[in-house]
Amino acid sequence: MSLYNFWRSSCSWRVRACLAMKNVDYKYLPIDLFKDGGEQKKPEYLEINPMGQIPFLVDGDADVAQSMAILEYIDEKYKNPPLLPKDVKSRAKVREICGLITSGIQPLQHRKVLGLMTSEDAKLKWAHDCVASGFESLEKILQKSSGKYCVGDNITMADLCLVPQAYNAVDRFSVDLNKFSVISRIYLSLEENPSFKKSHPLNQPDCPIQVL
Amino acid sequence: MSLYNFWRSSCSWRVRACLAMKNVDYKYLPIDLFKDGGEQKKPEYLEINPMGQIPFLVDGDADVAQSMAILEYIDEKYKNPPLLPKDVKSRAKVREICGLITSGIQPLQHRKVLGLMTSEDAKLKWAHDCVASGFESLEKILQKSSGKYCVGDNITMADLCLVPQAYNAVDRFSVDLNKFSVISRIYLSLEENPSFKKSHPLNQPDCPIQVL
Repeated sequence: MSLYNFWRSSCSWRVRACLAMKNVDYKYLPIDLFKDGGEQKKPEYLEINPMGQIPFLVDGDADVAQSMAILEYIDEKYKNPPLLPKDVKSRAKVREICGLITSGIQPLQHRKVLGLMTSEDAKLKWAHDCVASGFESLEKILQKSSGKYCVGDNITMADLCLVPQAYNAVDRFSVDLNKFSVISRIYLSLEENPSFKKSHPLNQPDCPIQVL
Repeated sequence: MSLYNFWRSSCSWRVRACLAMKNVDYKYLPIDLFKDGGEQKKPEYLEINPMGQIPFLVDGDADVAQSMAILEYIDEKYKNPPLLPKDVKSRAKVREICGLITSGIQPLQHRKVLGLMTSEDAKLKWAHDCVASGFESLEKILQKSSGKYCVGDNITMADLCLVPQAYNAVDRFSVDLNKFSVISRIYLSLEENPSFKKSHPLNQPDCPIQVL
């Protein structure tokens, strides 16, 4: 199994964390989203993935793009530990939280959208406001759904989406996580989880030494 | 089962089409996204769904937001006809296409993003370009994955996402669908499908008479 990905990308971290949870070995293939205008746009990469995006999983004759599709694929192929609850209602709640983050928050901080802003300050303000407003909704959902983690007491796909988004919120967009008590409680408890540590952006081979 | 939704919303159409395919009766609860600044922001609705979004499904003591989570929920609860293939590899391809549309294309035409544009022309151009660029990727995926429909010869969740997006592309953003031969072939064949007709925006009770 090979994963084209980038140390800093939050969508990539979701997938790396999933592979770490399932204890699946994979070949780490770094695609630098910034070098020379973006390696994801180079002809060599477009031949592999015409969408020119990461993360991108290649598994024998199967290839999968889009982080949620990759998470579901890995969860269906490697059953343990399961990353979705057993009952239909709780599974829906997990996927709702994933959808809120992957469709409702993350795309609004896409480089294409940030490129519309005229200054670095405006970029930061837009991203901060999008994430903070999304987190207000998320906090309300988690107040009902959470146990130890996002939905109940087991780690699910919802947590795989939450941790990278919360890290970005603090690290890149100066969101005050103290305003969101459930989000910050879950985030802080998962920061110490070995799979999230192993898959953390700062622990990846393509993380530049000057960042550390 | 009750569905809070809006005739014109493409995310709502995905869910209505799914319910029509499965032949599930439901209570249609219209939320007008434009009237008085948006009924989804009124306190009455925020008490029901604090996220202030549609579509929103209420099924007994279960409630589900986010269209992909709703599709998976309905598909798990009502098995026939299945809207995901049986094999893991094809299921991943269906979800990849759904992800490309629901996270990669649709959020970029969100009203919040369009609100950044300074004129109606700029809004239209942005939305047109986002959809057209997304469709270029989608077309390449479908060239490999499609049979009669997006993935193989059975209707899947991918088609539930494709049809509303293709309709919007033509109807609202003047995208030339002739440039995308597989997308337009699938779209044209599904336009005549009874479930897509029944769930079509123009056939909903809240569609204003002056639009017809």
